[in-house]
Amino acid sequence: MSSSSSSPPAAAPPPEEPRPVRFGILGCASIARKLARAMLLAPGAVVAAVGSRSEGKARGFAEETGLLRQGGAAPRLHGSYEALLDDPSVDAVYLPLPTSLHVRWATAAAARGKHVLLEKPAALCAADLDAILAACEAAGVQFMDATMWMHHPRTAKMRELVADKATTGDVRVINSLFSFRADEEFLHNDIRVKPDLDALGALGDVGWYCIRAILWAVDYELPKTVIALRNPVRNQAGVLLACGATLYWADGKIAIFNCSFLTNLTMDMTIVGTNGTLHVTDFVVPYEEKSAPFSMASKSSFAELHIGWDPLPSKHVVPTDLPQEALMVQEFSRLVQNIRDAGGKPEGKWPAITRKTQVVMDAMKTSIDNEFSPVDVSS
Amino acid sequence: MSSSSSSPPAAAPPPEEPRPVRFGILGCASIARKLARAMLLAPGAVVAAVGSRSEGKARGFAEETGLLRQGGAAPRLHGSYEALLDDPSVDAVYLPLPTSLHVRWATAAAARGKHVLLEKPAALCAADLDAILAACEAAGVQFMDATMWMHHPRTAKMRELVADKATTGDVRVINSLFSFRADEEFLHNDIRVKPDLDALGALGDVGWYCIRAILWAVDYELPKTVIALRNPVRNQAGVLLACGATLYWADGKIAIFNCSFLTNLTMDMTIVGTNGTLHVTDFVVPYEEKSAPFSMASKSSFAELHIGWDPLPSKHVVPTDLPQEALMVQEFSRLVQNIRDAGGKPEGKWPAITRKTQVVMDAMKTSIDNEFSPVDVSS
Repeated sequence: MSSSSSSPPAAAPPPEEPRPVRFGILGCASIARKLARAMLLAPGAVVAAVGSRSEGKARGFAEETGLLRQGGAAPRLHGSYEALLDDPSVDAVYLPLPTSLHVRWATAAAARGKHVLLEKPAALCAADLDAILAACEAAGVQFMDATMWMHHPRTAKMRELVADKATTGDVRVINSLFSFRADEEFLHNDIRVKPDLDALGALGDVGWYCIRAILWAVDYELPKTVIALRNPVRNQAGVLLACGATLYWADGKIAIFNCSFLTNLTMDMTIVGTNGTLHVTDFVVPYEEKSAPFSMASKSSFAELHIGWDPLPSKHVVPTDLPQEALMVQEFSRLVQNIRDAGGKPEGKWPAITRKTQVVMDAMKTSIDNEFSPVDVSS
Repeated sequence: MSSSSSSPPAAAPPPEEPRPVRFGILGCASIARKLARAMLLAPGAVVAAVGSRSEGKARGFAEETGLLRQGGAAPRLHGSYEALLDDPSVDAVYLPLPTSLHVRWATAAAARGKHVLLEKPAALCAADLDAILAACEAAGVQFMDATMWMHHPRTAKMRELVADKATTGDVRVINSLFSFRADEEFLHNDIRVKPDLDALGALGDVGWYCIRAILWAVDYELPKTVIALRNPVRNQAGVLLACGATLYWADGKIAIFNCSFLTNLTMDMTIVGTNGTLHVTDFVVPYEEKSAPFSMASKSSFAELHIGWDPLPSKHVVPTDLPQEALMVQEFSRLVQNIRDAGGKPEGKWPAITRKTQVVMDAMKTSIDNEFSPVDVSS
């Protein structure tokens, strides 16, 4: 807008840098080391406290992860989870505990007004998750599950292409694979093979990502039916080490996934639409930290005589300054700041996506438990 | 071997170049144009005759494909399939007719002592195929189906890596997708959507390649059970336009495929083993004619803190002087020469692979026809 006044406008004060979100890390699981680094890298976040079952463990974790050297104050070290939750300097907790402990500690955190960044799988079942989400809603705190790849700029770029009808058309088939080859130590001792800790096993761990990828690809439209693949592999305690499923939508879309602790590291998401095909083979953890590739074929035809393709698929490489887990922490912190500092409401998108993932996982588990019969997905 | 004689050894006569195999092309389908070019390119092959429903059609085909300009004699042009089969100058027929005509013309060719290179799907069912194979066996002629990618040097290179236990380990999961987006003209008029011509539709056409890829990946071990995916798409005449299946082996191996005329051109084969993962996204027709890519990840681990992969997958590019269809013609011609000129026997590997592909296709069709129930695969 132009102005006829000749006097310069009053200089606006520089926008105040929002106060960082003060994270408490609740539990010193291996994955928490990655998140501690992310909180050091992410603008708008600081690690204010670490809570473990002993103060010595908390100190060891803080030393190992460089938290004692972070700019500003060193984190407070708590010898119990309760003490961390009682720490008034903590705005938000990151909770990487075994899944069986999620309901107890996530609801406790919310009840004390802490925002909740929760490791996946969010819960053992949708009913458990609902208890967590209800506690967060009642307390007015932000909930997000720690599915890091959602926050990579590659994911936004892929969304742009998948959502574009000219490029991809209607999505019809989604394939996802996620496996890694667990070693003997893992297969005997990791929490993810223990029925009392992470009873969902490979389904809860690697399968979570496959289900999320599939839901992401269809913009979170729930499937109508889930049918588990036969021949799931269980350990002696009955925990799933490998399994898969097919998902069906009312309009004919189909998705297939397979997840395993028993095969080579593989992270595929393939989306086939009427007009285009997207391939990504490192969707959960990009091959390299600073950039992430995918390929997109659109309106692919055969060359004359079918001796080649025309056009060839396009290769995309999406750079990122921050690793995806730091971008996740940054996004979560923004949402917390909006609530804490600006009277905003929690963003409902994140708990909604978590719940849909959990609901599909429930259906998958029910299908396995019922001889691979079709299971209706109810929201 | 050294010799004490000072006289030079008698010069051996140069090895005689074997007489080329004289092909008759039986029917002028679109795919036959690609094969005519392959026969012009392949050492050891000549097109001796073209047979169509009229001599004019045969002439038009020969003109269009450059057969009239080939070195040596122009092919004889026959106005009927019978006349081509009666042509004594024809050693072998390439048969690209609609599938419903395969039994009649492939058995007729064999009965006249012609070797048979048969387009896929080989037959509408295993019983029909058995009639063809029995005729070939009785006549002592070579049988091969025209699955071209089997003959690309990339396929041999991939076999080497998949068979290597250190690289791939035990194969556990195979995924295959093959689709192309048919236009309206195809969906209304192509033989592959006509119940009286190619009644297997997308299953017989694109699905053939998926099944072959899966069997190839497990070195042709038949699955124990096949279960079709739900929601196959059919046209008004009941012909399949899109469908899929899961395949199960007794040892827990799983394969999944999806084939369609309704989505963007996609040609995936993914093989996941205990030690390695192979990805190829143009397995049926390579993106480009002179070289073909694939990637192989082996013993992939996470980098420290799971912020990347170590090692990264290897990219392979396999060059080829001749296109895969010419290599197929060359290989078929070698087998024919061995029989015709050296008293050899037909190579049993090719009909055996064809039959396994057909048997799995039968099971898949039975599963669709029986409400997606599990179907035992009987050899």
